[in-house]
Amino acid sequence: MEKLQIFKIGGKMLDDAAELEAFLKGFASISGKKMLVHGGGIFADDLAKKLDIPITMHEGRRITSAPMRDLVTMVYGGLLNKQVVGRLQALGCDAIGLSGADGAVLKAKRRKPQPIDYGYVGDIVEVRRDLLEMFLNQGMTPVLAPLSWEESGEILNSNADGVACKITEAFSGMYETCLFYCFDKPGVLLDINNPQSLLDKLDRPAYETLRKQQLVKDGMLPKLDSCFRARTLGAHQVLLATPGNSLKFAAGEQYVGTLIH
Amino acid sequence: MEKLQIFKIGGKMLDDAAELEAFLKGFASISGKKMLVHGGGIFADDLAKKLDIPITMHEGRRITSAPMRDLVTMVYGGLLNKQVVGRLQALGCDAIGLSGADGAVLKAKRRKPQPIDYGYVGDIVEVRRDLLEMFLNQGMTPVLAPLSWEESGEILNSNADGVACKITEAFSGMYETCLFYCFDKPGVLLDINNPQSLLDKLDRPAYETLRKQQLVKDGMLPKLDSCFRARTLGAHQVLLATPGNSLKFAAGEQYVGTLIH
Repeated sequence: MEKLQIFKIGGKMLDDAAELEAFLKGFASISGKKMLVHGGGIFADDLAKKLDIPITMHEGRRITSAPMRDLVTMVYGGLLNKQVVGRLQALGCDAIGLSGADGAVLKAKRRKPQPIDYGYVGDIVEVRRDLLEMFLNQGMTPVLAPLSWEESGEILNSNADGVACKITEAFSGMYETCLFYCFDKPGVLLDINNPQSLLDKLDRPAYETLRKQQLVKDGMLPKLDSCFRARTLGAHQVLLATPGNSLKFAAGEQYVGTLIH
Repeated sequence: MEKLQIFKIGGKMLDDAAELEAFLKGFASISGKKMLVHGGGIFADDLAKKLDIPITMHEGRRITSAPMRDLVTMVYGGLLNKQVVGRLQALGCDAIGLSGADGAVLKAKRRKPQPIDYGYVGDIVEVRRDLLEMFLNQGMTPVLAPLSWEESGEILNSNADGVACKITEAFSGMYETCLFYCFDKPGVLLDINNPQSLLDKLDRPAYETLRKQQLVKDGMLPKLDSCFRARTLGAHQVLLATPGNSLKFAAGEQYVGTLIH
């Protein structure tokens, strides 16, 4: 089977121009079919503060009010997406930016308001694979913002890890899918302050044990849940690593990071 | 030859939810190949004021500073483009939103800084017709934001009338192109306060005369220049009219507006 490499980037990296450029250079040079899913970064929060739009969180997850939804549509779908695509095009990668509304590529259902009303947040129910496949077959690289679309016409905010997972799921079976969750840690650490405590592999029983012992917690839980879901749903390979190490592995080098079993 | 209908909308209409929805409903129901180019609207200026980004104009044209470029990338490429696409998808029109960076579909050169430095403003030098054609052949409707892309990777601000003109030019000869410049007047008026003074046709000699007599001026001049350029470059038909009258004409009714000869 042909290989399809899907990278998810987000957070601090999107706010650091030099780090982002270094990643995009490496990403542009990867041969074969590939996609990029990006998250938010702190710029959206900075802008919300300037515009007096309250930032409301519940257990580490953003509650997306109507003004906040418009703001993330601007920042994720406009500024970040177009900046990344503009740079990739300059680096010789034929990128095309997409939000979930474009070609209805990420169809979602708004999350139910009980027990917590997360506002304009969508859980993806359908990936339009034929459209993404058309781009891949043209040698193009889809770059997806974490925005989805509901049949009512509304744009919804979606979790970028979840978007990457759903896309990987849609293409598994058709391609040998490799999913790279790039983040600012070398992988899953037993001790968050000690890079030496990196787990080079993680399977589900070990994950459950670590979870019970609270050795993995907070933001790592939904991220790892997405990783295991992607593996269960057919991903050939899921790696949690720094952007640099993810690119090295994609280029055929030995991996440094946490491989999900 | 097959018909391709290109609509340009902008200004006040984009700020009026009811008027925009009425237009999009009509647009969605047009059969055959079509594209939509949208401009800005006052929301970008409102946001600039809130963010203390100075709005600088020279002879009615915006000077685009770096923060203003980022702002229009957010507003035109993010908010407006995705809202329009999300609504069209809900109305059964398979729309896909594009900025000039996406697939490098609108390649531009930054305008020279002499005699006036307009900042991050691009004049379009190339339309990637094969990509737009691929969408049209898939039954999709490209929706273009007035943002272009320079080979350096920069996103540039471009005039939406000019974008519509360039796209029409690219497809003329290949299609019977019909270009509709929708705006808030019924067409070219000899007396701007009298709708009865509508010119139903305008050719270049008459335009030159009106121009000398200063009966057309200000913002109408670059708009009409784009109209005549499109006609000269092969457009089958160019109409200046209200959104409603443009849709009626597209649907085969008698036209009310100014047809460019």
